[in-house]
Amino acid sequence: MAEIQLTFPDGAQKAFEQATSLLDVAKSISTSLAKKAIAGKLNGELVDLQQPILEDGAIEIITKDDKATDLMAIWNTAAFVLAATLNRAYPEMQFGEVHATEDGFFYDTENEAGQVAVTDLPDIKKAMSKLIQAGGAIERVSLDKAAAKTLFAGQTYKLALLDEMETDQVLVYKLGDFADFGLAPMLAKVSDVKVFELLSVAGAYWQGKSSNKMLQRIYGTAYNKQADLDADLQRRQEAKERDHRVIGNQLDLFFVDPKVGAGLPYWLPNGATIRRSIERYIIDKEVANGYEHVYTPILANLDLYKQSGHWDHYREDMFPPMDMGDGEMLELRPMNCPSHIQVYKHHPRSYRELPIRLAELGMMHRYEKSGALSGLQRVREMTLNDGHTFVRPDQIQDEFKSILKLMIEVYSDFNINDYTFRLSYRDPANTEKYYADDEMWNKAQTMLKGAMDDLGLDYVEAEGEAAFYGPKLDVQTKTAMGNEETLSTIQLDFMLPERFELQYVGEDGEMHRPVMIHRGLVSTMERFTAYLTEIYKGAFPTWLAPTQAVIIPVKNELHYDYAKNVKDAMIKHGLRVRIDDRNEKMGYKIREAQTSKIPYTLVVGDQEVADATVSVRKYGEENAAEEASDMFVGAIVAEVGNYSRDGKDHKTINL
Amino acid sequence: MAEIQLTFPDGAQKAFEQATSLLDVAKSISTSLAKKAIAGKLNGELVDLQQPILEDGAIEIITKDDKATDLMAIWNTAAFVLAATLNRAYPEMQFGEVHATEDGFFYDTENEAGQVAVTDLPDIKKAMSKLIQAGGAIERVSLDKAAAKTLFAGQTYKLALLDEMETDQVLVYKLGDFADFGLAPMLAKVSDVKVFELLSVAGAYWQGKSSNKMLQRIYGTAYNKQADLDADLQRRQEAKERDHRVIGNQLDLFFVDPKVGAGLPYWLPNGATIRRSIERYIIDKEVANGYEHVYTPILANLDLYKQSGHWDHYREDMFPPMDMGDGEMLELRPMNCPSHIQVYKHHPRSYRELPIRLAELGMMHRYEKSGALSGLQRVREMTLNDGHTFVRPDQIQDEFKSILKLMIEVYSDFNINDYTFRLSYRDPANTEKYYADDEMWNKAQTMLKGAMDDLGLDYVEAEGEAAFYGPKLDVQTKTAMGNEETLSTIQLDFMLPERFELQYVGEDGEMHRPVMIHRGLVSTMERFTAYLTEIYKGAFPTWLAPTQAVIIPVKNELHYDYAKNVKDAMIKHGLRVRIDDRNEKMGYKIREAQTSKIPYTLVVGDQEVADATVSVRKYGEENAAEEASDMFVGAIVAEVGNYSRDGKDHKTINL
Repeated sequence: MAEIQLTFPDGAQKAFEQATSLLDVAKSISTSLAKKAIAGKLNGELVDLQQPILEDGAIEIITKDDKATDLMAIWNTAAFVLAATLNRAYPEMQFGEVHATEDGFFYDTENEAGQVAVTDLPDIKKAMSKLIQAGGAIERVSLDKAAAKTLFAGQTYKLALLDEMETDQVLVYKLGDFADFGLAPMLAKVSDVKVFELLSVAGAYWQGKSSNKMLQRIYGTAYNKQADLDADLQRRQEAKERDHRVIGNQLDLFFVDPKVGAGLPYWLPNGATIRRSIERYIIDKEVANGYEHVYTPILANLDLYKQSGHWDHYREDMFPPMDMGDGEMLELRPMNCPSHIQVYKHHPRSYRELPIRLAELGMMHRYEKSGALSGLQRVREMTLNDGHTFVRPDQIQDEFKSILKLMIEVYSDFNINDYTFRLSYRDPANTEKYYADDEMWNKAQTMLKGAMDDLGLDYVEAEGEAAFYGPKLDVQTKTAMGNEETLSTIQLDFMLPERFELQYVGEDGEMHRPVMIHRGLVSTMERFTAYLTEIYKGAFPTWLAPTQAVIIPVKNELHYDYAKNVKDAMIKHGLRVRIDDRNEKMGYKIREAQTSKIPYTLVVGDQEVADATVSVRKYGEENAAEEASDMFVGAIVAEVGNYSRDGKDHKTINL
Repeated sequence: MAEIQLTFPDGAQKAFEQATSLLDVAKSISTSLAKKAIAGKLNGELVDLQQPILEDGAIEIITKDDKATDLMAIWNTAAFVLAATLNRAYPEMQFGEVHATEDGFFYDTENEAGQVAVTDLPDIKKAMSKLIQAGGAIERVSLDKAAAKTLFAGQTYKLALLDEMETDQVLVYKLGDFADFGLAPMLAKVSDVKVFELLSVAGAYWQGKSSNKMLQRIYGTAYNKQADLDADLQRRQEAKERDHRVIGNQLDLFFVDPKVGAGLPYWLPNGATIRRSIERYIIDKEVANGYEHVYTPILANLDLYKQSGHWDHYREDMFPPMDMGDGEMLELRPMNCPSHIQVYKHHPRSYRELPIRLAELGMMHRYEKSGALSGLQRVREMTLNDGHTFVRPDQIQDEFKSILKLMIEVYSDFNINDYTFRLSYRDPANTEKYYADDEMWNKAQTMLKGAMDDLGLDYVEAEGEAAFYGPKLDVQTKTAMGNEETLSTIQLDFMLPERFELQYVGEDGEMHRPVMIHRGLVSTMERFTAYLTEIYKGAFPTWLAPTQAVIIPVKNELHYDYAKNVKDAMIKHGLRVRIDDRNEKMGYKIREAQTSKIPYTLVVGDQEVADATVSVRKYGEENAAEEASDMFVGAIVAEVGNYSRDGKDHKTINL
């Protein structure tokens, strides 16, 4: 048999017989290594220990002692054990898709006789443990499609998946009389699944299409060590407490009904109040900073997006055009830039007018895959805090600085402090891949870098990460769930002004081409609200809170009138306040106000009426304090004017 | 020949030979009547004097002395004279559609060799006058289609119109060697066109389709008497001065570019500021009156509009559904009611919560015919000040009153005083045509009438004008152009709650069906802004004006700093103010501020700096007055808080 050369992580090389497996390699080193080994890597790709290695390559053996950086094999095996267990418990069950995710696995199932419910999970978990303790070996066989189809006869979804496979050879795993596929890489023995947990059950359309049948998706996760599982479960618990979908439901912020439209959220009155507060804040802030707000139509002739290039390069994210029957094709806009370009072009422009800053809360539609949709975070209809500045080339740096200044002030007003800057340049080794204007690129990149240095801001430089049409600055943040997310972008664009032949009359009387700067301060209303919900854990600062205060009269018949006076004094200042005069116990009302995360609960009884005070309980605090009611009103008005800054100074940079 | 019986307006009847004409009838009465006669009516329909009358009928003879209530025959004849004249002047000219409109006529033409321009109109008018003075008789001939096609050979558009005609007989009018059709009824002689005017030339797509060729549309009008024409021309001049499209262009409020999308307006910064001011006002007003504002998606699964009935009954005004490829059909909403119903249904509802008042600035799309589109008045994408109240049947009257109260306050804030109320009931003779619930109809109609009476409001009652699903109140007003328009509607709806199975738990613990009340206070942002532009003639009250004040320093180097102080003091109060420090003459700047209809022009020079005053010129006033600058700021802030009421008390009604 031929030999192959395998390279170990330390660089050492050794010859093995062709078709050896990583398990054989481990055995050749030591029995204990072979025992601890759970999976391996071949040229960086995770593989089964048993997979035959046919060519030279770099290998790595992963053991149960390794830091669980790559848990896919464990999750795949746990999913396999889940299916084998279910197959015994529900012989009629149909199995659909199975996937290892970022933090576990899921398996789609269907059982006509009775769906799996979350209450069944403990029993299923017990049965899985038994199967693991029994410790069977997992057998790997490679079948051709026809043989696999015979093996999976009666499993409608599995047969459909087999039909979709492009290769004719199917890697099938067997445990006793149960077989499954699509699970590579897997551990060698089921007993290598040490600790695992079944997390939840949820409905999921077959292959993510809402026109298909809804299956039951069972979620789980698994680890080598109990401590890792415990840490994961705690993280999940915390994430759940911050999850904007969970809070959105608890606080009646929004809902989505996939039957009426997936990715199309309905903002309930509470959520709408938060959004409206953000919108008014951002418009006023932008207008005060020289932006001219416009409203532009969300529909346009498809030709506009052909001219902009979106139709050629971005089509798969766009909604289908509507044929209006008289030759006109109308398209829901995926971006607002072409609309603002129309506004720029409506008048002849002079160098004196520039920079021209156009802004809009612009509604856009993007066709996200239904599997990618999530609450307010990933939606199909969104309203972007969008702005486009049209500048002379010599104004790039100043305008960039003034956008940055505005951005930092806005973050500070929302008490967002945890972010980093990332400058993206073109790849100096592949300049031909970019918009062809060397001088413009060099100047612009130097200007952006210079601006960051002038302002004393830290940043990362990323060569080769610029868009085709210009360099950019991204502001990166982490969501409460730990995912990195782009909060804002300042993107230079040399291309669209060219495509739309934008012009201004220069001081020299000649026509010149402006540069466009795309910028969003707080992304879309949907995503930003999701983000704020998570960082605030639903306890919105007073200026954003749907209800800012609730007043509870101790006895309606004695204290309602006074409560009404306090309320009216607050309403006069535009505050959102209500009186809770329901026939419920005081303690119940106070608890409910806390559950609703209302910033202030004011109780008024005999003493308060006599002293013209209110008994103030701030959200999250145990005790109430007596305050003169006019002092309280003054303080809450000042607090609202201070946005989310929580007593901190307004952060700014000097230009 | 057979005889027919003709009935005169006074009821008298007389026998005539079959196929007699109204001209013959007139001659039979008196030669002078025959001379004065210009057209007639047969069974209420306007007809040529020469049309043969084949059956019994009621007739009327229209003379040149009659009040010009029905000028169609004159306008048709003038259009015919125009075409005959153009045909002589431009032998190659192609003629398209011709129509008598509400106030004149238009003719679509095409001349490859050189388009007709507005500067050509005086010469064309002279040539028309000559033709009229020559006084030829108009000959009527009925041809079959084939013969007509031979006659109009070479006239591409005329041939196309012939093809579209449903009958085989074509009524052709001839004057010398010129022939035309589609112009009934016409006068007997061209000399009966006494006074006329050619008004304008504009581009118009052939048959109104933007994919077709653009033709030149020539507009004109004609009357019997010079005084009528003069009055019309003056009305047109006034209308033009108020026309929101003209003002919208002068003041940079908005624009529409049919190439990018007909009926899809772009709101420029000035127009957007007005709209934003209206939006914030109306939201704040509604929230203060117990409405809960929401944001709901503009797209939904088509099934939603099948359930609501819109797809069955309103389809021709809806945009085509988008096939998302996975069986989902998404539809741009034509109305917001189904969206608000989703919000209502999201929670179980109790009788205690009702009325539930949901409101939104809801964007909708309606496919208006391109010929019907007009500026902001008739558009395809619109944002409605929409609201839906869900009430118990016993709450209808109180809720109706409270909506009326709110409406009247809003009108008063905009200084809208000229409106009338119209109550629409079902037709008592055809109750089977309406939603079947006699008791509900009777109660509801009695409640609405009772409410109007209680409030002491005048109203007109219109039996048989209710919608299928419930009675309504319309608020009618006249636009500046003299057209009657519905400003607001309060519409009861028994049907949608039924179709969507809306419920609430009653005091009895049973499920009950609520009644929905649809209401708009100020219609769409587009239409309302058009309406306000016309009633204010573009001189928006200070609270709505895009720029509320402009400050002009006499000499920048001496007075700019003081101007800046005044500006800052105003900005602090949220006022929209700018300094005009351009290198232009003072007089020019002041004139420009007046042309831009800016409410206040403030000039500051040596004296103002010394005295801490401003020289205030109010829009439309000749003279300026000195005011202490802090007094001025206080006064303008108070004025803004007073909306458009112009010193008048806030109008309200007591419930």
